[in-house]
Amino acid sequence: MQDDADASPAPPADFEILVQGAGKGRKAQLRLWLRMLSITKSVSQEIRRRLRVEFDVTLPQFDILAQLDREPGGLRLGELSRRTMVTNGNVTGLVARLESDGLIERLTLDDDRRVTVARLTKRGKDRFAEFARAHESWLTELMGDVDDATIGHALETLSVVKASALRRIST
Amino acid sequence: MQDDADASPAPPADFEILVQGAGKGRKAQLRLWLRMLSITKSVSQEIRRRLRVEFDVTLPQFDILAQLDREPGGLRLGELSRRTMVTNGNVTGLVARLESDGLIERLTLDDDRRVTVARLTKRGKDRFAEFARAHESWLTELMGDVDDATIGHALETLSVVKASALRRIST
Repeated sequence: MQDDADASPAPPADFEILVQGAGKGRKAQLRLWLRMLSITKSVSQEIRRRLRVEFDVTLPQFDILAQLDREPGGLRLGELSRRTMVTNGNVTGLVARLESDGLIERLTLDDDRRVTVARLTKRGKDRFAEFARAHESWLTELMGDVDDATIGHALETLSVVKASALRRIST
Repeated sequence: MQDDADASPAPPADFEILVQGAGKGRKAQLRLWLRMLSITKSVSQEIRRRLRVEFDVTLPQFDILAQLDREPGGLRLGELSRRTMVTNGNVTGLVARLESDGLIERLTLDDDRRVTVARLTKRGKDRFAEFARAHESWLTELMGDVDDATIGHALETLSVVKASALRRIST
């Protein structure tokens, strides 16, 4: 199920060093931002690698399946693109590939035959359930040295960060 | 300095809702992961928007300038691609564009004339310093509701998360 859209070279393990540079004296807010970027980039890269090795699936394909998994009625391709950060141009090829693998089907709406939606097949649902279980277990494993209290504190503090940012982004 | 590589549509403000779906009962590690993804995606999108509006520069261009800013001797394009997550294919066009804007220059090495490196011009350094100041102030503003102690706790807990993940990614 491989796809060219995913053929970027492996990045270095620790982005924070690269992004941060000589930023020791910088503001704590910037350091927190760089730390979050560093974690999400390196963990995303590892998840990307494991999806490829274990299931021969790319991260964009996984994202598309994840979005469709919670929309039994299916989604229009434009909406799928919007929800996944996959560009409109790439979503068509990715969906075609998943369709030829039997995981997705495309259908036209009865009330407007110009509109095409993609949705999971039974096989797609089963496969995605398998991917999702592995994905969750990898995250648990990657955070294996972090005790429950620390995870809880991180969730709490980041909910404050998230609320602050969203308040300023939406206005 | 706009570039087509950045012409994706605006995503919704809160990715966590979309990514998480009916995941209330899920493991705390997965929730923490989704929260980090949600923050980094929405804040990156906002920074992308502001760079465009304020400076007419794209996020990939900003990333390239940031990497070159800390390498006075310049970087080969392949290395630049690796450090920025910009694909090899796109880095050439981005560098050409920044060169035509007078922010970057390309030169061949004396000891191996087949090797081309890109580095910032004086004008590029000055412009990047301006972008970087704005970038830092935006992050401070976006986290404006978060008190210093909470920022400090987030930095500490995420350093534990990061160490745990990197330990498992590198082995």
